[in-house]
Amino acid sequence: MAGRLSIDNFWAVIPAGGAGTRLWPLSRQGKPKFLRDLTGSGRSLLQETYDRLHVLADDRFIVVTGAAHQEAVLEQIPELIGAAEVLAEPSPRDSMAAIGLAAAVLELKDPEAIMGSFAADHVITRAKKFTEAVRTAVEVARDGWLVTLGITPTFASSAYGYVHQAGELDGHPGVGLVDTFVEKPSEAVAERYLAEGGYRWNAGMFVARPTVLLDLLATWHPDFAAALREIAAKPERLPVLWNKLPKIAVDNAIAEPAASAGKVAVVPAEFGWDDVGDFDSLATLLDAALTVDSEGPTVLGEKSLVHSIDSTGLVVPNSGRTIAIVGLEDVVVVDTPDAVLITTRARAQQVKQVVAGLKEAHLDDLT
Amino acid sequence: MAGRLSIDNFWAVIPAGGAGTRLWPLSRQGKPKFLRDLTGSGRSLLQETYDRLHVLADDRFIVVTGAAHQEAVLEQIPELIGAAEVLAEPSPRDSMAAIGLAAAVLELKDPEAIMGSFAADHVITRAKKFTEAVRTAVEVARDGWLVTLGITPTFASSAYGYVHQAGELDGHPGVGLVDTFVEKPSEAVAERYLAEGGYRWNAGMFVARPTVLLDLLATWHPDFAAALREIAAKPERLPVLWNKLPKIAVDNAIAEPAASAGKVAVVPAEFGWDDVGDFDSLATLLDAALTVDSEGPTVLGEKSLVHSIDSTGLVVPNSGRTIAIVGLEDVVVVDTPDAVLITTRARAQQVKQVVAGLKEAHLDDLT
Repeated sequence: MAGRLSIDNFWAVIPAGGAGTRLWPLSRQGKPKFLRDLTGSGRSLLQETYDRLHVLADDRFIVVTGAAHQEAVLEQIPELIGAAEVLAEPSPRDSMAAIGLAAAVLELKDPEAIMGSFAADHVITRAKKFTEAVRTAVEVARDGWLVTLGITPTFASSAYGYVHQAGELDGHPGVGLVDTFVEKPSEAVAERYLAEGGYRWNAGMFVARPTVLLDLLATWHPDFAAALREIAAKPERLPVLWNKLPKIAVDNAIAEPAASAGKVAVVPAEFGWDDVGDFDSLATLLDAALTVDSEGPTVLGEKSLVHSIDSTGLVVPNSGRTIAIVGLEDVVVVDTPDAVLITTRARAQQVKQVVAGLKEAHLDDLT
Repeated sequence: MAGRLSIDNFWAVIPAGGAGTRLWPLSRQGKPKFLRDLTGSGRSLLQETYDRLHVLADDRFIVVTGAAHQEAVLEQIPELIGAAEVLAEPSPRDSMAAIGLAAAVLELKDPEAIMGSFAADHVITRAKKFTEAVRTAVEVARDGWLVTLGITPTFASSAYGYVHQAGELDGHPGVGLVDTFVEKPSEAVAERYLAEGGYRWNAGMFVARPTVLLDLLATWHPDFAAALREIAAKPERLPVLWNKLPKIAVDNAIAEPAASAGKVAVVPAEFGWDDVGDFDSLATLLDAALTVDSEGPTVLGEKSLVHSIDSTGLVVPNSGRTIAIVGLEDVVVVDTPDAVLITTRARAQQVKQVVAGLKEAHLDDLT
């Protein structure tokens, strides 16, 4: 039965990939970021993504994930079993292949479909604003636009890409026309963006008719679009065709050229958004959600396991062991059954180097 | 059979006590510092103490330890079983009671005994110098002196007490007469001691005839001495008498007043000595023993478990888990199966506050 907020023919596409190596040792190859509860809500990021979209899409879901994670996805969202597609990628081919495959499958499945693609490993707050933005985006997409949600920036981030609005869209008040997508800028450039206005964070959320999306792809990458349509028509061809697909992000493959061609719309979005790239951003996110400011580091997990003196930062007790911290500011401690990470918020980006080092040392069990 | 270096009638007394709370979580109530290998030698501090003294005392040992640790002591030094006394204290009563009990037992056992008391939880290097100093101390003690070993200071430590030499002892060239013992001085005062000369570290090592030691105690604490002699004569009285004994250190009970009375001699000692009070001093100790200077923190334990980037300090992997450290200087990480400590060398003293906090929280299993 359709829920009260359900949008007709709206399909939620969830690309569930990404290693999240900067969140090691919490995020692992075998259980990456999207399968983890990073907010202390009791639900994984994937489950929260599903929950957020379920009210809009009912059972109309397509999840695209690595073959290694298909089972875990179904375990975490048993509602998908028999009701929705969970497509397994034989190997990671970046976001264009994942989203394009979902589009090709949907193109055959529902001629009236409007798809919205939302990564499985982002954190969103103020869910009502999210619902509103998606609803608007779907309306615009019905008219044949490639629509992106543009997050109102809250600070001059150099970790996110931006989308620039050139003007308003006819017939859709408040919705903008995009002229460019820009990659992660320097902090100085980001400051300028905020001062100038018209720039929003590109959260990689796209809403479109599947055919519109695939036709845009066919404009600049005709073989790519053809291969995806062939896989959708003949699923048995997947193993052969998949590994020949280009590794390219959806932003580069279609969003950027389509913006230049005046075919992309942006719906301003006022919800809170974070891609939780590393433990520093996780700490910021968790601190923002705190309703009581207490002494000591922020704890993601069982607080009684953490004993600190004159310390701040982020502690993740994830092995049941006691963690004692004395005299460290902005420290990050992540404790798991087989590995413990100690770093600082300022150095959190370098955690990926640890993972690279472990791989080099052939310690794949730990990565 | 007596070894080549064995000293006639020399008895080694080892008070094996002390919680070592500043070395938590490595040192625990159930397995304190002296039962731990803190140097990576494969032998515990107690075992190393035994090894060092065995060449001088053969099987003439008296170990005084807490009732809770008697079994562990015998497990670590099976040579003691049936050959030597391992006296169990019903409760901790500080060093005078422990050493005094050994003296009272020896007074009855061997009228010619010379006892030397050496804590079970100190680290000593340059063992040959230790052997020489003990040999000299025993000779002086045979003449009725209370003899202490005075360590040549290598820096102006504010963590150790000092012994001051007033002049030379007649008939024992190179041996000094002590006029005062001083408690841990400020750093400024310690600097002055080193500049003035005549000051040595008081390592709490005393050599004397048991009767001399007990008679000195009887001079200032007659009831104390009488109680110890009663326990030695009637061991069944131990449970009743022990818990009434004063809690006082041997330095305060006899060494200080005896020095004022001109009855204490000091043998200059050139061996390396460290009481390994906290992880900062342990790090210094381990660094001094390094024969190869490698990048990254010093590791006590399995080096392959530690992966560090731009970090220095001390890491103790003691649970088999991998430890990754990114961007922390002079950090201390001690990993055990049920607790992990993260601090800095500068704050290592405060670790005892963690232990106090755990006790307050009734988490005695962890302390």
